[in-house]
Amino acid sequence: MEEYHINILNLLAILVAAWIGGSISRRLNYPSILGELIVGIILGPGLLGLLGESWTVRVLAEVGIILLMVYIGMEIDFKDLKRASWPGFMAAIGGFIVPFVMGYAAIIYFGGTPMSALFVAIAVGVTSLVTKSRILVDLKLLNTRIAYVLMAGALISDTLALVIFAGILSFVDVGSIDLIGLLLVAGKAVIFFAVTILLGLYALPKLGAYLSRAKFQSSTLYFTIILIVAFGYAELAELAGMHQILGAFMAGLFIKESLFQRNIFKEVQKTFYDVSIGFMAPIFFVTAGFSVTVEVFTTDLPLLLVVILFAVVGKILGTTLFYLPSGYGWREGLAVGSGMNGRGAVEIVIAGIGLEMGIIDQNIFSILVFMAIFTTTTVPFLLKWTTEWLRRRGELAQVNQRHGYLLVGVNPVSLLLARHLQEKSPVNMIDSNKDLADHAIEAGFKCVHGNALKEEVLVEANAANKFIFIALTNNSEINMLAAQMARENFLIPNIYVAILRNDDGVGAALLKTIKATSMFSMRTPLDIWFNKISRREHKEVYESVPEKVTARHWVKEKRAKGVQLLPFLIKSTDGYKRPFHYGEEIFSGEQVVYLK
Amino acid sequence: MEEYHINILNLLAILVAAWIGGSISRRLNYPSILGELIVGIILGPGLLGLLGESWTVRVLAEVGIILLMVYIGMEIDFKDLKRASWPGFMAAIGGFIVPFVMGYAAIIYFGGTPMSALFVAIAVGVTSLVTKSRILVDLKLLNTRIAYVLMAGALISDTLALVIFAGILSFVDVGSIDLIGLLLVAGKAVIFFAVTILLGLYALPKLGAYLSRAKFQSSTLYFTIILIVAFGYAELAELAGMHQILGAFMAGLFIKESLFQRNIFKEVQKTFYDVSIGFMAPIFFVTAGFSVTVEVFTTDLPLLLVVILFAVVGKILGTTLFYLPSGYGWREGLAVGSGMNGRGAVEIVIAGIGLEMGIIDQNIFSILVFMAIFTTTTVPFLLKWTTEWLRRRGELAQVNQRHGYLLVGVNPVSLLLARHLQEKSPVNMIDSNKDLADHAIEAGFKCVHGNALKEEVLVEANAANKFIFIALTNNSEINMLAAQMARENFLIPNIYVAILRNDDGVGAALLKTIKATSMFSMRTPLDIWFNKISRREHKEVYESVPEKVTARHWVKEKRAKGVQLLPFLIKSTDGYKRPFHYGEEIFSGEQVVYLK
Repeated sequence: MEEYHINILNLLAILVAAWIGGSISRRLNYPSILGELIVGIILGPGLLGLLGESWTVRVLAEVGIILLMVYIGMEIDFKDLKRASWPGFMAAIGGFIVPFVMGYAAIIYFGGTPMSALFVAIAVGVTSLVTKSRILVDLKLLNTRIAYVLMAGALISDTLALVIFAGILSFVDVGSIDLIGLLLVAGKAVIFFAVTILLGLYALPKLGAYLSRAKFQSSTLYFTIILIVAFGYAELAELAGMHQILGAFMAGLFIKESLFQRNIFKEVQKTFYDVSIGFMAPIFFVTAGFSVTVEVFTTDLPLLLVVILFAVVGKILGTTLFYLPSGYGWREGLAVGSGMNGRGAVEIVIAGIGLEMGIIDQNIFSILVFMAIFTTTTVPFLLKWTTEWLRRRGELAQVNQRHGYLLVGVNPVSLLLARHLQEKSPVNMIDSNKDLADHAIEAGFKCVHGNALKEEVLVEANAANKFIFIALTNNSEINMLAAQMARENFLIPNIYVAILRNDDGVGAALLKTIKATSMFSMRTPLDIWFNKISRREHKEVYESVPEKVTARHWVKEKRAKGVQLLPFLIKSTDGYKRPFHYGEEIFSGEQVVYLK
Repeated sequence: MEEYHINILNLLAILVAAWIGGSISRRLNYPSILGELIVGIILGPGLLGLLGESWTVRVLAEVGIILLMVYIGMEIDFKDLKRASWPGFMAAIGGFIVPFVMGYAAIIYFGGTPMSALFVAIAVGVTSLVTKSRILVDLKLLNTRIAYVLMAGALISDTLALVIFAGILSFVDVGSIDLIGLLLVAGKAVIFFAVTILLGLYALPKLGAYLSRAKFQSSTLYFTIILIVAFGYAELAELAGMHQILGAFMAGLFIKESLFQRNIFKEVQKTFYDVSIGFMAPIFFVTAGFSVTVEVFTTDLPLLLVVILFAVVGKILGTTLFYLPSGYGWREGLAVGSGMNGRGAVEIVIAGIGLEMGIIDQNIFSILVFMAIFTTTTVPFLLKWTTEWLRRRGELAQVNQRHGYLLVGVNPVSLLLARHLQEKSPVNMIDSNKDLADHAIEAGFKCVHGNALKEEVLVEANAANKFIFIALTNNSEINMLAAQMARENFLIPNIYVAILRNDDGVGAALLKTIKATSMFSMRTPLDIWFNKISRREHKEVYESVPEKVTARHWVKEKRAKGVQLLPFLIKSTDGYKRPFHYGEEIFSGEQVVYLK
C-alpha cells in the first residue's frame, strides 16, 4: 500500500515521458501512441528502469481506457458506415478475418493455447482508427474514396474486435465449456446487447430531451451525466460477464449529437478527448510498454517475425481480396489494405487485458506490442506509395462524404466559382434575394432562397453535410456571421470568408476565432469584379506555379508587381480544382486560376 | 488488492450519489459540496453502509483534489485582490484570524494537541469561495461593494489557510522542534516559494510564448502541458516537505490567461473545471463523508457546539471588527461576515489531510465536516437578512469592479442612455465616425474613435474592465459581431445587442450562441427614435410596475395596446438605473423609463 497521498513523482515522470514520446512521434507524422509505447519500453522496468507502476498510475490508466473507449464510440458515425457502401464494408471484414485466421493458426502452430491464439487473432485483425485522419490530411487524401473506406474499415474492425473479444472473455470465466454453460454465456451476451441497445435507442434520447427541456446550459453537468451513463454501461458489461471497455464503447456509440444541443455535445466530446487522450490514456500506453520484454527478439524471434509477417500480409491481402468485387481494382484494394495495416489503441488495450488476465504471457504480449509498432510505422510509407501510384495512373477516386460546397451569396463571382467547383463536387448556394436565388437555380445550381444567418435556411441548404463553406456576399459582416453559424452549429470543416477591401472592421483576429481563412486574398474589392464579370470584361488565366508557395505569398508577389487580379481557384496536377484562399498552399506544378 | 480491473460499481454508485446530492443541493440554492458531503455521510459506512472506499475511488479523489486546487488557483485574479482595497483586505484577515484564534483555544481547552488545534483553527478560519457567486446572483448583489469584499476575502483566506497549513505540515514531519530543525523547515519553505514564484514569473511566460509561437492550436496539448506543470509544482511542494495541494494551488496562481491566447486559456480552464468539479472532486467530497461519525453528537456534543459557535461568531465578529476602520459601518461589516461564514472545499480538503495523517481523529474530523455543513447553510439566510437590511436603509453600496458600461455606436439613443447610466457608473463609448466620437467626447463621455470589431479598439475602450456591453449601432450585424468579440475576447459578463426591426437576419439563435439578450425589445426600429430625439419630439416617461413582470411581457402588453414606445431603462426603488433588455425582470415598485 502506498503512502497517504498519491505518488506524484511517478505520475509526473510518466506524464512527461508520454508527452515527449507522443510529441516526437507526432513530429515524425506518427500517432502519439507509437511514441508512448516506445518510451514505456525504453524507460520502463524492462530496460532502463527509470519508470515503474504504482496504484495511482494504474487506476488512472484503467479509467483513461474506459474514457477513451467512450470517446472512440462517440466518434463513430453510423452514417460513415452507410457511406462506405458494400465494397468498403466487405474490405473491412476481409481485412479483419484473413489476418485473424492467420494469426490464430500461427499461435496454434507454435504451441499456444486456443484462448491465447484467439487473443492474438483479434490483435492481428484490428485496424487502428486514430492513426489515420492525420495521415490522410498529410497525404491529401481527405476527399478520396479510399479515405472513406479506410475510416469505415477501422470502425467496423474495432467493433468486430471488441464484440469478439467480449465473447471470448465470457468463455474464459466459464472455464470448461459445456452446452449449458455455452447457452448461459451466449444468453448473457444477447441480454447485454439487447439492454444496452434498447437503453441507447429509447432511454438516452428521453434523457437528452429532458435535459434540453430543463435548459441546463452548463456542459459540465452533461459531462457528469454522460460519465455516469458510461460507467453504468461498463457495469452492465461486467454483469454480463464481458469487459467494461465493451460497455464504455457501447455507451459511446449511443451518445450522439442528436441527443443534445450540438454545441453542448461538442464541448462534452472535447472534455472526453482532453481527459482521455490528453491525460489518462497516454499513461495506459506508457505503462503498457512496461510489460514489454525485449528478450522476445532472442527467445521468440521466429514467432515474432511470423506474427508481424502474417499481420501485414494477412491485412493487406485480406482487404484486397475482399475489395475485388467492388470493381474498383486491386490497386485501390492494396492502398486500402496498406492504410488499414496500422494497429493502435484498441489492439494494445485488448492485449493488455489478455496479459492482466493471464490469457497471454509476457512474450506474446511483447510480440503484439512490437507488431503494433511495426505495422503502424508502415502505414505512411505503404499508403503513400500505393496512393501515389493510383494518383499517377489517374485512378485516385474522389468522393465527398460531406458533399461539396455551400456558397452564400449569389453574384457574378460566386456563380463563376460555382461553375468550376461543380465539375467535381455538388455546390449548394444561398441568397436572401429571391431573384438572384432563382437566377442561380436557372443556371443549374441548387439554391435556397433565404437568410444564411438563420439556422433553418442552412439546414435546408444541407449545411450539415457540406465539406467546404464559402461566404461570398458583398458584406463582410454577413459573411463573418454566416461563417460563424456554419462553424459552430454545422461544424463544417473548411470555412472561407470573403472580406471586402473597404472593410477594415473584420480582422484576422475574428477569422482566427472561428478558425476560418479569407477567401481570395486578405481583402478583396469584390464589387469591381462583379462589374467586370457582368460586363464580360474579365479573362480567366491559368498560371502554373514553379515551386511550392503559400497563397499569401503568391498574392504578395503579384501585388508587388502592381497587377490587379482575383485568384479564385487552384487546379492540381490531376485536374482537381479547389478554392483559392489565404491559408492555402500551392504545390509545384499546380495552377492558380485567376481573373484579370 | 483489487481485481485486475477497476471497481466500476463502487465508482458508479459514488458518482450517482454525488450527482443526486449535488443536484438537490443546487436546487435548494446551496453549493453542490453540501449535498455531496451529506450523501457521503448518509450512504457511507458510518450510517447506511451502501457505499464504501476502494483504491479506484481513492486515487480519483486525490487526483481530483489536486486538479481542483489548480482550478481554484487559476480562478484567482490578483486584480480582484487589489480592487478589494484595504478595508476588504483587513476584513478578510480579521475574518480569518479571530475564528482561527478562537478555534485554537477551544481545542486546547478541550484537551486536544496543539497540532490538532492548529488544524481546527485553520478549518474554522477558512472562507469558502465556490459558495458565493451563485448566491450573489440570486440575491442580486453582483455589483455591490459587499460582493467584491466577499470574493477578495475568500481568496485571501484560502491563500492564508493553505500557506499556514503547508507550514504546519512541514513541522509535523520534523517531529521535535529544535532551532536547526526549525531553520531547515523554514528554509525549505522559503526555497519552495522562491522557486515556484520565480518559475511562475519567468519560466511559465516563456513556455507560453514558445507555445504561442509554435502556433499549437489544439487546447488539448496545452491541457497536457499545464497538467505536467501542475504535477511538477505539486512534486516541488512535496520535496519541500509541504503538501502537494499547495503546489497545485501555486501552479494555478501562475497559470493565467496572459500566458496563452485568451480562448485557449478558457478552454483549458473549462477542462480543469469539468474534470475536477464535474468528475473527480465530488468523489472526494462523498468519500470525505464516509469518515464522518454521527456519534459525535452524543460523545462530543459540547465540543461540536463550541466549534460551530466559535466558527460563526468568530468569523462574523472578526470580519465586522476589522471592517470598522473602513468607515462603511458595522452593518456592512456584518453582511460581509455573514457572507464569509461558509466553509467549503478548502476546509474539507485540509481536514481530510489532517485525518489521513493522524493529526486529528475521526471525532474532530466529523465535527469539522458538520461545522462546514452548518456554516454553509447559514450563508443564504444571514446574507439575505443583512443585505436586505442594508437595502432598506439605502446603504447597499454599488461598486463596479468591471467599471460600468461600454456602448458601441454614438447616436441620439445611445447618448440619452449614456447620460442616465453615467449617474452611477462610468460609461465608455466607441464609434467609427470621427465626428460622432468627438461629439460624444464634447458631451462629456469617454469615447474612442475606431472600429468596435477590432480588438485593439476594444482594448483602448477598456473592454476588459467593463461589466455591461451594449451594442447600439444602427446595424444589427455589426452589433452582433462586436458583441461576439466582447463576449469571447473580453469576457464581458452582460451583453445587450440592439436588433433592428427590419433585420430578420439576426435571430434569437445567434444571440443565444453568444449568451446575449436583445436591448430594448426583440426588434427595435432605432432610426425612428433617432429622428424623434434629434427633433426633440420625444418624451421620457417613468412608469411604475405594480407587480413583478418580465421585460418581454411588459413589451408585449404595451404592444397589445398599440402604443409605440422605446423602453430603455429600469429604475429600481433605490434610484439605481439599469438598461432595459429582453432578458430582464422588473420587480414590483420599479419604474420602466421609456421614450414616447
